[in-house]
Amino acid sequence: MTKTKKEDILHEGRLGTYSADASSYTSSTDIDVRLLQAVIKINSAHVVMMHEQGIIDRRKATDLLEALNRVPKNLEMTDELEDVHMNVENFVISKIGREAGGMMNLAKSRNDQVATALRMVLREQLVALGDAMISLEESLLDQAQTHFETVSPGYTHLQRGQPVTLGHHLLAHFDSLDRDFARLVDCYLRTDLSPMGSGALASSGFDISRERTAELLGFESVLENSIDAVSSRDFAIEAIYLCAQTMTDLSRLAEELILWSTKEFSFAEMSDEFSSTSSMMPQKKNAIVPEIFRARTSQVTGDLIGAMGIVKSLPLSYNLDLQELTRNLWSATDKATFSISILAEVVQETEFNKGKLNEAVTSDEFLYSTELADFLVSKFGLSFREAHSRVGKLVKFASDKGKIELQFTGLDPRTVSEILGLSITKEDLASIVNPKILLEKRKSTGSPNPKKVLAGCRARTKAVEKHKATLGTFRHAIASSDELLSSVSNKIKKSGADERTRKPTTNVEVKE
Amino acid sequence: MTKTKKEDILHEGRLGTYSADASSYTSSTDIDVRLLQAVIKINSAHVVMMHEQGIIDRRKATDLLEALNRVPKNLEMTDELEDVHMNVENFVISKIGREAGGMMNLAKSRNDQVATALRMVLREQLVALGDAMISLEESLLDQAQTHFETVSPGYTHLQRGQPVTLGHHLLAHFDSLDRDFARLVDCYLRTDLSPMGSGALASSGFDISRERTAELLGFESVLENSIDAVSSRDFAIEAIYLCAQTMTDLSRLAEELILWSTKEFSFAEMSDEFSSTSSMMPQKKNAIVPEIFRARTSQVTGDLIGAMGIVKSLPLSYNLDLQELTRNLWSATDKATFSISILAEVVQETEFNKGKLNEAVTSDEFLYSTELADFLVSKFGLSFREAHSRVGKLVKFASDKGKIELQFTGLDPRTVSEILGLSITKEDLASIVNPKILLEKRKSTGSPNPKKVLAGCRARTKAVEKHKATLGTFRHAIASSDELLSSVSNKIKKSGADERTRKPTTNVEVKE
Amino acid sequence: MTKTKKEDILHEGRLGTYSADASSYTSSTDIDVRLLQAVIKINSAHVVMMHEQGIIDRRKATDLLEALNRVPKNLEMTDELEDVHMNVENFVISKIGREAGGMMNLAKSRNDQVATALRMVLREQLVALGDAMISLEESLLDQAQTHFETVSPGYTHLQRGQPVTLGHHLLAHFDSLDRDFARLVDCYLRTDLSPMGSGALASSGFDISRERTAELLGFESVLENSIDAVSSRDFAIEAIYLCAQTMTDLSRLAEELILWSTKEFSFAEMSDEFSSTSSMMPQKKNAIVPEIFRARTSQVTGDLIGAMGIVKSLPLSYNLDLQELTRNLWSATDKATFSISILAEVVQETEFNKGKLNEAVTSDEFLYSTELADFLVSKFGLSFREAHSRVGKLVKFASDKGKIELQFTGLDPRTVSEILGLSITKEDLASIVNPKILLEKRKSTGSPNPKKVLAGCRARTKAVEKHKATLGTFRHAIASSDELLSSVSNKIKKSGADERTRKPTTNVEVKE
Amino acid sequence: MTKTKKEDILHEGRLGTYSADASSYTSSTDIDVRLLQAVIKINSAHVVMMHEQGIIDRRKATDLLEALNRVPKNLEMTDELEDVHMNVENFVISKIGREAGGMMNLAKSRNDQVATALRMVLREQLVALGDAMISLEESLLDQAQTHFETVSPGYTHLQRGQPVTLGHHLLAHFDSLDRDFARLVDCYLRTDLSPMGSGALASSGFDISRERTAELLGFESVLENSIDAVSSRDFAIEAIYLCAQTMTDLSRLAEELILWSTKEFSFAEMSDEFSSTSSMMPQKKNAIVPEIFRARTSQVTGDLIGAMGIVKSLPLSYNLDLQELTRNLWSATDKATFSISILAEVVQETEFNKGKLNEAVTSDEFLYSTELADFLVSKFGLSFREAHSRVGKLVKFASDKGKIELQFTGLDPRTVSEILGLSITKEDLASIVNPKILLEKRKSTGSPNPKKVLAGCRARTKAVEKHKATLGTFRHAIASSDELLSSVSNKIKKSGADERTRKPTTNVEVKE
Repeated sequence: MTKTKKEDILHEGRLGTYSADASSYTSSTDIDVRLLQAVIKINSAHVVMMHEQGIIDRRKATDLLEALNRVPKNLEMTDELEDVHMNVENFVISKIGREAGGMMNLAKSRNDQVATALRMVLREQLVALGDAMISLEESLLDQAQTHFETVSPGYTHLQRGQPVTLGHHLLAHFDSLDRDFARLVDCYLRTDLSPMGSGALASSGFDISRERTAELLGFESVLENSIDAVSSRDFAIEAIYLCAQTMTDLSRLAEELILWSTKEFSFAEMSDEFSSTSSMMPQKKNAIVPEIFRARTSQVTGDLIGAMGIVKSLPLSYNLDLQELTRNLWSATDKATFSISILAEVVQETEFNKGKLNEAVTSDEFLYSTELADFLVSKFGLSFREAHSRVGKLVKFASDKGKIELQFTGLDPRTVSEILGLSITKEDLASIVNPKILLEKRKSTGSPNPKKVLAGCRARTKAVEKHKATLGTFRHAIASSDELLSSVSNKIKKSGADERTRKPTTNVEVKE
Repeated sequence: MTKTKKEDILHEGRLGTYSADASSYTSSTDIDVRLLQAVIKINSAHVVMMHEQGIIDRRKATDLLEALNRVPKNLEMTDELEDVHMNVENFVISKIGREAGGMMNLAKSRNDQVATALRMVLREQLVALGDAMISLEESLLDQAQTHFETVSPGYTHLQRGQPVTLGHHLLAHFDSLDRDFARLVDCYLRTDLSPMGSGALASSGFDISRERTAELLGFESVLENSIDAVSSRDFAIEAIYLCAQTMTDLSRLAEELILWSTKEFSFAEMSDEFSSTSSMMPQKKNAIVPEIFRARTSQVTGDLIGAMGIVKSLPLSYNLDLQELTRNLWSATDKATFSISILAEVVQETEFNKGKLNEAVTSDEFLYSTELADFLVSKFGLSFREAHSRVGKLVKFASDKGKIELQFTGLDPRTVSEILGLSITKEDLASIVNPKILLEKRKSTGSPNPKKVLAGCRARTKAVEKHKATLGTFRHAIASSDELLSSVSNKIKKSGADERTRKPTTNVEVKE
Repeated sequence: MTKTKKEDILHEGRLGTYSADASSYTSSTDIDVRLLQAVIKINSAHVVMMHEQGIIDRRKATDLLEALNRVPKNLEMTDELEDVHMNVENFVISKIGREAGGMMNLAKSRNDQVATALRMVLREQLVALGDAMISLEESLLDQAQTHFETVSPGYTHLQRGQPVTLGHHLLAHFDSLDRDFARLVDCYLRTDLSPMGSGALASSGFDISRERTAELLGFESVLENSIDAVSSRDFAIEAIYLCAQTMTDLSRLAEELILWSTKEFSFAEMSDEFSSTSSMMPQKKNAIVPEIFRARTSQVTGDLIGAMGIVKSLPLSYNLDLQELTRNLWSATDKATFSISILAEVVQETEFNKGKLNEAVTSDEFLYSTELADFLVSKFGLSFREAHSRVGKLVKFASDKGKIELQFTGLDPRTVSEILGLSITKEDLASIVNPKILLEKRKSTGSPNPKKVLAGCRARTKAVEKHKATLGTFRHAIASSDELLSSVSNKIKKSGADERTRKPTTNVEVKE
Repeated sequence: MTKTKKEDILHEGRLGTYSADASSYTSSTDIDVRLLQAVIKINSAHVVMMHEQGIIDRRKATDLLEALNRVPKNLEMTDELEDVHMNVENFVISKIGREAGGMMNLAKSRNDQVATALRMVLREQLVALGDAMISLEESLLDQAQTHFETVSPGYTHLQRGQPVTLGHHLLAHFDSLDRDFARLVDCYLRTDLSPMGSGALASSGFDISRERTAELLGFESVLENSIDAVSSRDFAIEAIYLCAQTMTDLSRLAEELILWSTKEFSFAEMSDEFSSTSSMMPQKKNAIVPEIFRARTSQVTGDLIGAMGIVKSLPLSYNLDLQELTRNLWSATDKATFSISILAEVVQETEFNKGKLNEAVTSDEFLYSTELADFLVSKFGLSFREAHSRVGKLVKFASDKGKIELQFTGLDPRTVSEILGLSITKEDLASIVNPKILLEKRKSTGSPNPKKVLAGCRARTKAVEKHKATLGTFRHAIASSDELLSSVSNKIKKSGADERTRKPTTNVEVKE
């Protein structure tokens, strides 16, 4: 274990030597890279606010804003300085000295700053995740529209149930994903609140304006209670949940793509560009993207459980455990965004095999068993349960006869009539096992009827436009605040620079 | 292994013998007890709708509605009949015969029925969970109001940080819980959609009205896509997540109650009625309710992970795996609701020890280190980082001297001035280590200032009233639909009974 | 909230009123039912030990042993008395009075008692789980032996890879399960240690013999450190992990049974007795047992995560959180044992479709691509990578030609030779695509060669016999201790009864 | 999306263009860095074995071994080549051409190779984890020995229970950790088996010797069944479980270090080098290492759940999902090893505050309530339950009187006698509340008696020596195989080099 005397801005006072191992173990600089721009913005906004409130003078504000402007995008951070916050402060002090630079952390703490930075970065990640979700929604809509009348077997228990349309099936995935998009919006709104000004946990005795800082950072509002503001990470856990829920929902589509790509199903052929072969078996074409998608789903679920475990039973307010939760958050949003956007591409490029789908729906007449039972009800007034039972017997009979497996029309209508105890004609059977007729009869809301599917695609296309507008609003609020902060900063810097040519630096002004 | 010939309404057709073990393994009758009333209502609504749409005649509808009315509250269910759905249908058929009774499952399936019943029961559970959350919010508000100016040490890293007010600390828990309430409302709205009419997965060829059934069951709307409607359980997972998130948030309060009840902290004394002693150590008074709360938090997290694992990679549409998810759902909502409502009682009855809290805040003057640093900035124009460093040295000096541990005022002001390199008076120190002055200076939004706490309590009391109104709206919609269904049913039964005295039963009428 | 004055043996001293809600919330009587017999035994052994050590006299020992003998198997427990321990003690006191009955808890606590009882019950559950695992191993061996030379397609990425034997595939599942059996034995050995005598956490000042109590309860040894003994639940978490691991491993078999039962694969037909149909679709035959198996796997994983979450960050020694962990333990062992034993039945009764398997292996000649590449290496001295590349091109060529999909022998040998750049004959191709030849060539350990499979079955049959012997040893140790305890108790009771007829009860004897 | 024609050794045959996004999404090169050395060794061993079996000639073997020798430690890997396996093969071919280089993957696949490499790296990681565990065991033993007679309050429910010795408490953590070490050994043995020779899933038709490859790689034995060998990851999940279990166990120690470092407890002072201060509050000294430890515990639990979720329901044999599990494995072993080794340092450097511990044990006489009850039993022959009740009343009486809180000796002995209903003297009380006497009376195995603690330290020191020997054996087996492989390779290369000067390369020799 290497121990060194720690003599940096944070440790020179209270604590002395430190262990390099411990430094490396507890540092967050590796994950803080992503927070750097947010931290610079927060410091800038904080400086502007302090100046506007008369807490620091124009000269110090100008110096600080200029130094913050000069922080390199790839600022090298050291573990000794623990995190991005101290590294940025250290950089600023190294550029403009401690007199001005040492004012930057007045009336704030790493605790409110990191909570704020996390929310700012998460806002952007949620918008990016929303983009990915929209791109997959569009892929699904495209394919659904293309296949609005492509018949396909609908499954329950992975056993063929009834004929549906492929477009209808794909819209089921769309709708599930669309609820996740709604969750994303809910999550965004709970994220878009500013903890700044909460200090370590007890705000500050200086006359700060939390509302102004929030405005300069593009937040909808402040997160009120100062203890809550630095202690809570439910917004982050909700985001991880969102990722886990969305991936769990979509893992079902991934599973189907894998199943449908098997020789046995052959309903879909994934594009070569998303497939791989084997190092040993030259014939292989493996659906590897959805495999990785499935695995990442479980990993993101692991991220969720980790995050919940971290927060469980943690006394208020800030504890360093919370720093680690950030790893789980990035892991989840990164994995979800990449996974969903690549799945969008995969869905777009997948070739569905109409021939095989049609063959499955026409060669396996057992798919029409419910239709046959319904027919017995409609035509002969049998009760449904009785009809169900009789058709069950017919299926059993047909299954037991190897040759005409999966067929009603292959049986002698007299045999059928005998088993059903009712007189069924060849024409009856033919019209029952016709997928087109079956689908057209389904007129209720949300049925697999091709007309419903087409109308559904149109309605959902409009919904997607709305989603884009929503994300646009989010983006706009952030961009506007960037402009605002930049323009206010420039004004301060300009007059500060003017002033500097006139008089020497003075100290804090309690009120300008 | 016992095998028996299965000859019930479900198995008489297609399948024969069955294993009693398998029956017991795959049956859901144990967890379906809770669905019974919902299933009866759904069947009633479905019958009414079918009758209104001319799918079944008044006589059958009357018979069915009457039979459904007679299903005992504690209907004994058998595993052989697999679940509540078949047990109810079997009961109905046993009462009114297969001709009428066998019509009940026309144009529907267990798949849409169970999804609908789950949503109906979950609606009620969410309202009950909301009630529990509100009762805890009220307990927290009560205590916060009582202790709006009770000083208490605020912690970070479980180390004393700065003085706050106990009321402020309690409001932090309130605010966190309040976001969970907002999540509950979001979750409710996504739950309040009717899958009925989706059939097994492909809706029905009969002329059903999904909208009417939804109305009769008090749903806001239908869940559109028929495949999605029977396959999706994201609403249930979201509810489990809600439970897990809320309990995770509150486990922090539970932890604090345990900590504060220790001899070492002694900030709180839990009421005897929530405590237990030891079978061996007669002096013990253990804070067992929050201990169980912590444990249940982890269990509910386990429920969440189980539920997500069940859905992951499950191809559409319905698979029996989904039946098991229901166990996780009930487990989570039960545990959360009970835990939160008992925690509300515990918080209400806890005695906070003002003396001990005050002693902690006044005897440990290191709590005022930030205040001292701020003072150096304000009065002497030191930069904050410089002030922070000097105060750090002072703390180090004071800590190293055993006698005057934790004190600034116990030190000679000249020594203090020397260490700080600035001239500090006894009066300066006295006013810095005064919690009242410190708290009054904090004027920004969400600060621990007693005035802010009081105003915060008032605002939150109004918010709680709104939450109650929201739950009231949910309750009302359900109750209204009960009345509607009941009145429509009675009308049908009445005219059906009239009719029955006039003419014999006929069969299905395609349109009346 | 109902509050009542609590006046039972536990509460009469230190604590007063209690809340019925809290009582119900914190009580463990519902899950303690399963501990009852163990608790009785522990008390008996403790009494015997105390008597042998001269801590209590023969009369009290006799009374206690007799009272313990009379505890009904279905002892009704009340929540007010918190748990099984106090309910049993209360019963005993109610039968023989406080003077003798009140001695039962001398030199012990609920903390060591519950840890001991858990381990005793878990021992039995592990043996039962082991039985279930063995029964599944036997089913797998039976089927593997039956199908030692049944060819079947081996898959990677759910794409057909190379021909294997079905027996070989089933042995893969056997071997995986067999490692879980080894884990079970490891877990048993860490469970089979006695915490008794640790008291609440600090053992006892009386002259107890922990070794003797351990012996009377059939434990291999004592769990030494008294704090560790009452605090640790790693043995329970390990058992839950064992359940989760085993079910995770077997869920892969469950998944395959579902896949293979689809119309598309048709490799297996599950017996009717493990299948169900649909309430709507009369043709359905659903593989519901493996579906439930999959779901339970996720639930048990949830149990594991819950248990780990409960213990995480829990300070020593006993906390009531640990009580809740027991729920997760029972849930896991019950679910695993039932699931595995029913899966054993399912595997036993499944009919594998040799025809379909053979068809898959013979009609899809791409399965022999690696064999063809190996041939090019052996015969023409091509490097493997070159051969792999050329065969890849051949597969691409053959795939692109719709007609002769999946075939090498269907192509003109000259075309094949041209694409491969080497002269291949019809005979070459015919011998390459022959599964028998392919399998016979595979002579290394653990290959799918039918001979290896047969030998493997024989070796594993012997391994299973050893497993049975291991479980037998465990069973025997428990049964022997039952006899020992019973015989020692009887001897005490006999002489105690003799004595009772002679002299009046006296008090504690420090040494007889 | 960028699509490019893929023309590398893997894709030139079967598949064409690929998506750069997909390549990056599915590639494992980032995590494969850690497998590189193992992969090189495996290839070397495979080449040696193939040469010894007469499958490849000496010239090719020599070329391959030399090329493998030249693979740079920091080989740059490209995503296009998917993983370490193809990158290494590509490097080799680029150095020695396809004729020789293309033979390296004969009779093997990435599937068996990656499973083997994982096991080899895991072996090393388990040894490193074992080292970390031992170092923490030694720290605990050191401190336990130092504090074998330091009295300290023992807790249940975080309430003071009875006096124990600090050494005894620390040994409780030792024993728990020691069981985890035993689990590590179990896990190692199940890891130390070679999958090599299993090929993609069906082994190889060439005359390979799996046993020889296993020997050259230092494995105890082969993992028999070829399908199982490439499909199973239970060894990896077990390792993750081991990490999660160990960290869960140790998180309790971490929690105690945090609690004990609070002002309120003040039982321990962590060394400055493991502490940090606040950016705002200059007085803070935070116990950050155990905080991060707690958080990592939850993350590793998340890794476990992710890994189990990945494997659940995955059909045999290899699926790419398994690649992702590797991330979870590295994450868990890295986090556990680093966390435990740093915790060892922290424990070593922690100063336990004997004064405060002693004060807690002597000032709070309620800790002796059980002792008092035992005394009433011993001296007056009261039943324990009666004594427990009476002492409870005494505690209640004493608690209700503010002044003499926590004291028995502060009460008038006559009052005590009155409440207890028995005559107690001042001397009785004094000897009861004496921790030394109390601890000396505890003579059973595993009690907190200082003598037992000392003896326990000695016994455990010997156990640690055995653990070191065990890890030494593991290390030795690996090192020996390195030497063996190296010496055999050199011999081949030497004669190959000799030969090269004599005759031109020829092709495969079926048998030399």
